[in-house]
Amino acid sequence: MSLKTEAMPAGPPRTTAGDRIQSLATEYDLVRAASESFCAPLSPEDATPQSMTDASPVKWHLAHTTWFFETLVLEQAITGYEPFQAEFRVLFNSYYHSIGEQGSRPQRGLITRPGMAEVYEYRAHVDRHMRDLFDDASRITDDLARAIAVGLNHEQQHQELMVTDFKHLLSHNPLRPAYHDATGDSETKLEPVSWHAFDEGLRWIGHDGEGFAYDSETPRHREFLDAFELASRPVTNAEYLEFMNDGGYGQPLLWLSNGWATLQEQGWKAPLYWEPREDDWATFTLAGMQPIRPREPVTHLSYYEADAYARWAGARLPTEAEWETAAAGTAIEGNFVESGRLHPAPAGGNTGLMQLFGDVWEWTRSPYVLYPGYSAPAGPLGEYNGKFACDQWVLRGGSCATPRSHIRASYRNFFPAGSRWQFSGVRLARDAK
Amino acid sequence: MSLKTEAMPAGPPRTTAGDRIQSLATEYDLVRAASESFCAPLSPEDATPQSMTDASPVKWHLAHTTWFFETLVLEQAITGYEPFQAEFRVLFNSYYHSIGEQGSRPQRGLITRPGMAEVYEYRAHVDRHMRDLFDDASRITDDLARAIAVGLNHEQQHQELMVTDFKHLLSHNPLRPAYHDATGDSETKLEPVSWHAFDEGLRWIGHDGEGFAYDSETPRHREFLDAFELASRPVTNAEYLEFMNDGGYGQPLLWLSNGWATLQEQGWKAPLYWEPREDDWATFTLAGMQPIRPREPVTHLSYYEADAYARWAGARLPTEAEWETAAAGTAIEGNFVESGRLHPAPAGGNTGLMQLFGDVWEWTRSPYVLYPGYSAPAGPLGEYNGKFACDQWVLRGGSCATPRSHIRASYRNFFPAGSRWQFSGVRLARDAK
Amino acid sequence: MSLKTEAMPAGPPRTTAGDRIQSLATEYDLVRAASESFCAPLSPEDATPQSMTDASPVKWHLAHTTWFFETLVLEQAITGYEPFQAEFRVLFNSYYHSIGEQGSRPQRGLITRPGMAEVYEYRAHVDRHMRDLFDDASRITDDLARAIAVGLNHEQQHQELMVTDFKHLLSHNPLRPAYHDATGDSETKLEPVSWHAFDEGLRWIGHDGEGFAYDSETPRHREFLDAFELASRPVTNAEYLEFMNDGGYGQPLLWLSNGWATLQEQGWKAPLYWEPREDDWATFTLAGMQPIRPREPVTHLSYYEADAYARWAGARLPTEAEWETAAAGTAIEGNFVESGRLHPAPAGGNTGLMQLFGDVWEWTRSPYVLYPGYSAPAGPLGEYNGKFACDQWVLRGGSCATPRSHIRASYRNFFPAGSRWQFSGVRLARDAK
Amino acid sequence: MSLKTEAMPAGPPRTTAGDRIQSLATEYDLVRAASESFCAPLSPEDATPQSMTDASPVKWHLAHTTWFFETLVLEQAITGYEPFQAEFRVLFNSYYHSIGEQGSRPQRGLITRPGMAEVYEYRAHVDRHMRDLFDDASRITDDLARAIAVGLNHEQQHQELMVTDFKHLLSHNPLRPAYHDATGDSETKLEPVSWHAFDEGLRWIGHDGEGFAYDSETPRHREFLDAFELASRPVTNAEYLEFMNDGGYGQPLLWLSNGWATLQEQGWKAPLYWEPREDDWATFTLAGMQPIRPREPVTHLSYYEADAYARWAGARLPTEAEWETAAAGTAIEGNFVESGRLHPAPAGGNTGLMQLFGDVWEWTRSPYVLYPGYSAPAGPLGEYNGKFACDQWVLRGGSCATPRSHIRASYRNFFPAGSRWQFSGVRLARDAK
Repeated sequence: MSLKTEAMPAGPPRTTAGDRIQSLATEYDLVRAASESFCAPLSPEDATPQSMTDASPVKWHLAHTTWFFETLVLEQAITGYEPFQAEFRVLFNSYYHSIGEQGSRPQRGLITRPGMAEVYEYRAHVDRHMRDLFDDASRITDDLARAIAVGLNHEQQHQELMVTDFKHLLSHNPLRPAYHDATGDSETKLEPVSWHAFDEGLRWIGHDGEGFAYDSETPRHREFLDAFELASRPVTNAEYLEFMNDGGYGQPLLWLSNGWATLQEQGWKAPLYWEPREDDWATFTLAGMQPIRPREPVTHLSYYEADAYARWAGARLPTEAEWETAAAGTAIEGNFVESGRLHPAPAGGNTGLMQLFGDVWEWTRSPYVLYPGYSAPAGPLGEYNGKFACDQWVLRGGSCATPRSHIRASYRNFFPAGSRWQFSGVRLARDAK
Repeated sequence: MSLKTEAMPAGPPRTTAGDRIQSLATEYDLVRAASESFCAPLSPEDATPQSMTDASPVKWHLAHTTWFFETLVLEQAITGYEPFQAEFRVLFNSYYHSIGEQGSRPQRGLITRPGMAEVYEYRAHVDRHMRDLFDDASRITDDLARAIAVGLNHEQQHQELMVTDFKHLLSHNPLRPAYHDATGDSETKLEPVSWHAFDEGLRWIGHDGEGFAYDSETPRHREFLDAFELASRPVTNAEYLEFMNDGGYGQPLLWLSNGWATLQEQGWKAPLYWEPREDDWATFTLAGMQPIRPREPVTHLSYYEADAYARWAGARLPTEAEWETAAAGTAIEGNFVESGRLHPAPAGGNTGLMQLFGDVWEWTRSPYVLYPGYSAPAGPLGEYNGKFACDQWVLRGGSCATPRSHIRASYRNFFPAGSRWQFSGVRLARDAK
Repeated sequence: MSLKTEAMPAGPPRTTAGDRIQSLATEYDLVRAASESFCAPLSPEDATPQSMTDASPVKWHLAHTTWFFETLVLEQAITGYEPFQAEFRVLFNSYYHSIGEQGSRPQRGLITRPGMAEVYEYRAHVDRHMRDLFDDASRITDDLARAIAVGLNHEQQHQELMVTDFKHLLSHNPLRPAYHDATGDSETKLEPVSWHAFDEGLRWIGHDGEGFAYDSETPRHREFLDAFELASRPVTNAEYLEFMNDGGYGQPLLWLSNGWATLQEQGWKAPLYWEPREDDWATFTLAGMQPIRPREPVTHLSYYEADAYARWAGARLPTEAEWETAAAGTAIEGNFVESGRLHPAPAGGNTGLMQLFGDVWEWTRSPYVLYPGYSAPAGPLGEYNGKFACDQWVLRGGSCATPRSHIRASYRNFFPAGSRWQFSGVRLARDAK
Repeated sequence: MSLKTEAMPAGPPRTTAGDRIQSLATEYDLVRAASESFCAPLSPEDATPQSMTDASPVKWHLAHTTWFFETLVLEQAITGYEPFQAEFRVLFNSYYHSIGEQGSRPQRGLITRPGMAEVYEYRAHVDRHMRDLFDDASRITDDLARAIAVGLNHEQQHQELMVTDFKHLLSHNPLRPAYHDATGDSETKLEPVSWHAFDEGLRWIGHDGEGFAYDSETPRHREFLDAFELASRPVTNAEYLEFMNDGGYGQPLLWLSNGWATLQEQGWKAPLYWEPREDDWATFTLAGMQPIRPREPVTHLSYYEADAYARWAGARLPTEAEWETAAAGTAIEGNFVESGRLHPAPAGGNTGLMQLFGDVWEWTRSPYVLYPGYSAPAGPLGEYNGKFACDQWVLRGGSCATPRSHIRASYRNFFPAGSRWQFSGVRLARDAK
């Protein structure tokens, strides 16, 4: 598979090596700047604590993404490369056993030093060396180019996590502070859901080799799909409230066994961040507490809630192969992080399958497993995806916190069934009649 | 066992209704007797405690399987049926929300009353009423016949659990007591593993409608398989010891991320029940502590260990569809519970795929999900399988604790990835070259 | 202090050595028989499980008390003594590091073998050897006589624990089964509480050397007491219900900080074993569920509840020195285990301080610490009491589950502040005006 | 410090009210400035996270001590007082149920807003109003003066906690960063321990009414003490190392039962912050990792370790009454927070009882209980001490992190037996021969 030699996040693949490096360099500047742009309104206090083991401090994200380039690119590319600070090699290693010891994950929020200022120096140091490297394109082997491309996509993933992790942190503050000002409600009329039919047949699933993809999106392979139908848009708050008002959170027969146990343990009565008001609900957003807007896609659902809702609605979740088949020809447009809204928006118009990309990640009924014929890349990048193929569920399509250039039809996100702090929602599917 | 040809979920019954009921009645007596036969050597003390939440007391198994017939058959069939004791309806309900409240699962071992004697009276009471029902075959609708057939298969599942749960309980006793006498080692020569090749293609997977099957084995549907190869027999203790001696339990790169975390939390250094001896290992069996016999299939592995072993061996686990395709034409023979050994035995001969059935359940790389087009049966039986389709992994082929008549090629067992107290082992697969 | 040479559970101290041994022998038979007498109505199932780490199976109590005599008496007295079963030395060692390894405390309920029958054989074996030893009084040194006396008192303590642990176990059974038939309510009229005044002064506290006492009751020493008053009887259910009805369980200002945290964690709304009925409460007893009888002393209170009640009542708990001072001259009469009631009874008459002994253990405001000048005995008996002097609270006076011959004015029982499964109640005290 | 002679709970004030208020005002400025002075070298990142539930962020300490004056002084003194921010009343309430809801204790580290700058504004706002109040002394009732005096002592307690909590936080950073530069080792020769004898007798214990004291130091009352001896100085690192080298952490017979359990659970092998070096130990200090200096008092011991050491040494811990009797006439001199060392220093000279004050808090064998005749103050201050009198142990004498003016002979500090993050050490006592 030619992925390795064509690997890059964007740009036309059939160009000279020099062009490709130049393109990587441009992309590097954009991606690195985007991380820092998100942090501009944050104080050092905001950037430091960790609200749960699954989440990380913003300061850690800024450092860890830098560590990636330092360790997996600069260390490999430059003989005798002087690290910014030797101890960072361990401190900001997330989970790469092939690189060595790692900082303690549940204690990321206890690391007050380096502080934000020093983390920015760290970033600048690595950026300088990366630019030097780009200036001498001959030193960038195909493997290094692949590592840089992964590093850029890696940093984009962490940009999304910065948004969701910081939202989670902020939600613990009883003052319910805001990251930014609220965006006004849209005026668009919302059409009722319609169903799009797909025939049975053998389908090619997985990345086709054009542009960047993670190893887990490959190999491209065949899957047989029975005929199915897919809803025209994700489930809205109004629709989800019907489920809640019908006692959805109190009927064990609607839930997976693990889901019902989790619901009871955690006392779930609504999606994450929802708080009851007198006759109503409000929700915590990055613009502080806001009323529930009926036409917005419901978000911050666990797999369990998505699955229970679908059962209640007489439908089911799509498989990831169904989703990918439907999305294969669709343009990648939508409400991404670039909109600055950082919250799902109502579907606009009613033409075809809406909001496949952006707004909310869509839970599929597919556990995250490796594709037939998968083999992990050699070296540390082999730890990127493969070892997590256990008890996680695939989500598709990106969200309002995903960079637009990061997503594609074959993209596989995955989280445990009980996770709710991502912008995760639900689109219904059903068997063809 | 006539269950297969007569009590079936689908397909035309080729016998008269009366014959079918008679056959069910015979089967009923055999299955019920088998449960009690396992308990004959047990004291009331042995039958009472619960060693972990996942396991249940033998006394509970005896009562719960009886509850199944009382609640799902007799209550439905007989107007004004007088239950043996009204409170048992809750006390011995395992997880059926559609029936109502349930006894506390982690506290099953604290229920000393009813004692064994009273549980046997309960069994006798229900058996009497079941026999009366069989004698009046006209009252047995198709739905009731299905419920009875499920009840018999249910009791067989619990027979296997009685073996594994009781072994688990006994293993906590520092005296390492025995349930029965040890069976001698076999003299058979063990051939090296050979690989059996299968072509790519679209395959029908799931139960074909002939004889009994659980809902989760249906609907029969098509899956596309790439060409693959399957090992001629499960991995042996000798082979697994090579992995251990090569430091397999100390190399994080061999393990799934969750697996490595579990290994560290639990301090795993060997399969469950293995204890170090001076230069060697011994293992707890139902015949007490025994030396490790090199040619026996390794057992009491978690999914994590099976997967790590396969990675170390340069192979992988089969998918359940691969396994089923390979097993489809194979005769159901092997070391089942009826052998009385209650421990895996070495493979005999070297003809084709050996030990697909019996000896050890074989972990597959397939998470337990519901087949395309699945819909849960109406009523309580709808809770039997469907709601557990989350974060469990499929095992195939039955074990030395499975009743022979209980297993078939389409049979899907499932357990969480960290479970080790079942007789679970590993057969390797690999992609065709 | 001469305790060591005069140590015996009962009988006049100034007798010949032979008389003393004979008296010990008689006592031995009585105490050993009493343990078995409690178990007569129990099934092997009843005797096996463990309902929480703090409690033990009845079967374990029967074996451990026997282990005490085997290990601390017979092993010492008889050269080449053959233990009943060598592994019991570890299995039934509770917490004696000086003897060696110990069976796992939280797993006592998983030891099904030895079963009850074998435990009785164990008891018979040890009893035979003990009788042989008594027959040859010359072999019983002062140290051995002390060990035997401790062994008998130890077994009496475990008799009380058998009652409370078994009650705790049985309470988990939703059938709420009974150990024995209920005793009828008493007809006695209950007088209002009166207060008994005591002057300030220097008091001698601790055992005076007459008869048996534990090391923790010594040395006798002086404590200065301010003038105080003591209530004539323990708090009754009726009085405690006033506290409950006044919102006692909802007012944090009434509670110790740890107590309020425990109440919230555990969801306490009433004493242990109380269950709400329509307009009322019932309580689980060894005679099954029973209505709350207003005149009975309230029991199954934690220290936290006793303390909160006292604060609500404008009083306080007595110190153990106050209690002992008041009890010093009082006859040891009351509702002990020998009454067979196994439940507190209303105070009778109104003469002086009632129910100081028997009915309910009375929480004192004294943490369990060692008396000034205390030094632990040499050998394993040094582990009996001293090492537990940390974060436990003293209770005084014995209960309806205490053998009458076991208690005395200087007797110090102790439990952690959150413990509720003993027959623990509360008697109020207050500073003299 | 003038607090002692002026802001007192009892005893005749020997000055005019106006003088007393002026003195409180001066004290106010000094104490408030001291808190901020400790924070000068800290970054906002340093001030934000919480390393364990028992500890708090520095930022929280700064705000909570301010909340104390705002809520317990300004709100009471000034009709219509406008709080700096209304929500702070809940957010920075530590544990005062009489004031209302409280911020979640384990989540103090997740509150990033208010940030440090805003907390300083909060402090300035309250300080301005306090100064206005001091300027109008007639509004300061005796109750208010008492509340202000408590507030100042409260802030001093939090100054000590800022030191120990921040040290604890910093210790989690694998870079082992330093708060300040190390102080050089002292040259003083250390004399061997000598023993100071005290006669038996009835002693007055508790505060004598001269100067400020907490409610828990009263009422002054009589206790009878047997004759005892007290060591001339605390145990040193060199002495404690002998215990360690003698296998002290491996001998269960030296430990309280709870202590041994804790040691095993936590894997204790040395005092908190000690780390093994090749042939030696080092310890984390506020000046980073430092070698163990043999002559310094050992610190960061739990009660369990102090008690085990004393048992190993053939001695015992003093009671708090013994300690207070010995300290009653001693000048309050020593290594306090004002030295800037923030670490214990070796004893100097050998005259009498050394280091009773400062350097390390000395564990006593006295559980923290309320003195005879104690009654809690009315209002919120009644929650300050009384409700914590459960399962904590008294420490005496102050430490290198205690403000000099905060300590006195009757001062009772208390912590749970397993606590190690305070500067806690051990001075031996023994019964008189």
